[in-house]
Amino acid sequence: MKRNVLIIGAGGVAQVVAHKCAQNNDLLGDLHIASRTVAKCEAILASVNEKGSMKGPGVFEAHAVDAMDSAAVAALIRETDAAIVINVGSAFVNMTVLEACIETGAAYLDTAIHEDPAKICETPPWYGNYEWKRRERCAAAGVTAILGVGFDPGVVNSYARLAADGMDSVTSIDIVDINAGSHGRWFSTNFDPEINFREFTGTVYSWQNGAWQSNAMFEVGQEFDLPVVGKQKAYMTGHDEVHSLSANYPQADVRFWMGFGDHYINVFTVLKNLGLLSEQPVTTAEGLEVVPLKVVKAVLPDPASLAPDYVGKTCIGDIVKGTRDGAEVETFIYNVADHKDAFNETGSQGISYTAGVPPVAAAILVANGTWDVARMVNVEELDPKPFLTLLNGMGLPTRIRDAEGDRPFEG
Amino acid sequence: MKRNVLIIGAGGVAQVVAHKCAQNNDLLGDLHIASRTVAKCEAILASVNEKGSMKGPGVFEAHAVDAMDSAAVAALIRETDAAIVINVGSAFVNMTVLEACIETGAAYLDTAIHEDPAKICETPPWYGNYEWKRRERCAAAGVTAILGVGFDPGVVNSYARLAADGMDSVTSIDIVDINAGSHGRWFSTNFDPEINFREFTGTVYSWQNGAWQSNAMFEVGQEFDLPVVGKQKAYMTGHDEVHSLSANYPQADVRFWMGFGDHYINVFTVLKNLGLLSEQPVTTAEGLEVVPLKVVKAVLPDPASLAPDYVGKTCIGDIVKGTRDGAEVETFIYNVADHKDAFNETGSQGISYTAGVPPVAAAILVANGTWDVARMVNVEELDPKPFLTLLNGMGLPTRIRDAEGDRPFEG
Repeated sequence: MKRNVLIIGAGGVAQVVAHKCAQNNDLLGDLHIASRTVAKCEAILASVNEKGSMKGPGVFEAHAVDAMDSAAVAALIRETDAAIVINVGSAFVNMTVLEACIETGAAYLDTAIHEDPAKICETPPWYGNYEWKRRERCAAAGVTAILGVGFDPGVVNSYARLAADGMDSVTSIDIVDINAGSHGRWFSTNFDPEINFREFTGTVYSWQNGAWQSNAMFEVGQEFDLPVVGKQKAYMTGHDEVHSLSANYPQADVRFWMGFGDHYINVFTVLKNLGLLSEQPVTTAEGLEVVPLKVVKAVLPDPASLAPDYVGKTCIGDIVKGTRDGAEVETFIYNVADHKDAFNETGSQGISYTAGVPPVAAAILVANGTWDVARMVNVEELDPKPFLTLLNGMGLPTRIRDAEGDRPFEG
Repeated sequence: MKRNVLIIGAGGVAQVVAHKCAQNNDLLGDLHIASRTVAKCEAILASVNEKGSMKGPGVFEAHAVDAMDSAAVAALIRETDAAIVINVGSAFVNMTVLEACIETGAAYLDTAIHEDPAKICETPPWYGNYEWKRRERCAAAGVTAILGVGFDPGVVNSYARLAADGMDSVTSIDIVDINAGSHGRWFSTNFDPEINFREFTGTVYSWQNGAWQSNAMFEVGQEFDLPVVGKQKAYMTGHDEVHSLSANYPQADVRFWMGFGDHYINVFTVLKNLGLLSEQPVTTAEGLEVVPLKVVKAVLPDPASLAPDYVGKTCIGDIVKGTRDGAEVETFIYNVADHKDAFNETGSQGISYTAGVPPVAAAILVANGTWDVARMVNVEELDPKPFLTLLNGMGLPTRIRDAEGDRPFEG
């Protein structure tokens, strides 16, 4: 069944979502994209047209909307007759967009957890603070809400489920995210600096020994030896998926590891220790009230501008350990993506690509009924096989490395 | 002859100036201190009273003035009947205060070169851009204007003159400024961060081989082995005194070297490369126009707050090489100051102390006629002996290290 899609947001990830929706518009219905600045949406539509991404004839329209205004989003959903909303706007707008979906009955997909601009690193599990409080209302309204269906969170939750389904018990899930690419700038974050730094300024929560554990950022690090990208140092980091996988696999240790070079750590440490990553306003000598983090964002490169020069590969996957038939088993389920390939296909770099392709696969599964579950779920609660099979053909192939070798996942 | 003194500014250096004026109010007349925020002046007066710094009974009053408003400064000079103005306000107000002195006939003393907030590192010689353009008007009005009479510039210019007077020719003047003290903070500048960083973001000008040479900051470094503070790494830095000593000793190489630890250099490099030291405004995503450097200033510790915990010593001096009676000679003329001693005496740390004591010595020499030259001069144009002799008794004793050993300067 064809269903109209409304994309919220107009950044690098939204650009990938737009291209992928266009490439699959035979499986989806009319396409719409909306953000505060309609010119950004129009630039994305221009890119879609330029690359000839529309598979068949169809509608793709740009709109202006303030996504913090739930009623405005609901009105736009009704106006566009959207049955599926892919929210890849700022993490601050999730709840207003979700409310609009509950009100209108549209399916809701996002790729990152909701954040309150004034708070950093709230009480775990993070999903319990905003999203899961709306579970009953989604079920009552029959609204499908798939939380965190980007790559990480998202595909890695499916990897965890796939691995767990092949084991009798799971003892640990370690998600490892390595970007071995190079953007050629002195320093840049790969996505919105405000969101990027907010991830690392709070407590690092992990789920170990059946309880939440707290560490400081860059306190716990280890080297991983991964396919294609080789040996890479990664640090235990707070991340969305730890907060749902720990609820669904409470007997397993759940940790997230992100690769960082010494240069990134040094820049981050200087900015953090000086107070420049603070979301709390300071007052200049001239009496101007300013949030330091927003000034840091203003001086850093626009992550979208990195795409043309970005080279190298990402490797993101799950090391899952457990038991099967009484024996200890371990598997690494992963994807390798290439920045240049992503740019050639969608005009965005690899980090945006890995985040933007999965919600379109999920939208296709909602549209065709496979994942249209009429309630709020995290990705590991859904059958991983149709999702990963679809992604195999959409530019994000899954591979498995275990005792039997390294091979493609074939569904 | 007693002459009334008006201090402009109310920072850490102004506090030292106030204490030292008070300690010498038998040689000076009524004392006045003025800044935009009168409460800051009143806090300094409270410190003067608390430490019992007034030598004899006398007037010491606080005033509010906008030092960017030349007419307001002139009115205050007339109101207070000030014959000497010690300008230790922001480097941005020098010309408006100097204009007020030219208009009223008061003597003008400052400790740092004039700066335009919108410009960094102008064409050398820097004094030629603002100060020296007013030389003829000072001479015509009979106004004594002593430029840069802090420690560096200031005392080091006198050291250069003292050394040069003892040689037949001077081949090089290397001014070395080492702060071997520790403030115990993760990072702080020792004086106004805005002025501190502005010193190091532009071209490093030095005078070598009879011409201006350009280098980048931290491009040229060397280790110096100095009295008390030992071996210290210092880097060639742009600094005021190079721009007058090169005019008065054009045959000599004139360089300024400032000590920096690796930690300072790292923080500076990160901030500079990210664009956070820029004096040009940026616009945040929310549309707020902000000068990044002013935000950095807002998050850094107030340099005045460092004083209570500051320990260790500074060593600042001139390595002067030349010839005497056909032989090559070399001398190091220097002062060692102690942060804790400075705090105990004036409530300010050593960097403020070394900058704030010399203009008071100069004011005494203007008051008693020794330095009341009725024209604009840089410090090396004045007889160094009465100045350095006076400073010996005011907490900044001069020492000389040369082929004959290391000994106090005795006038």
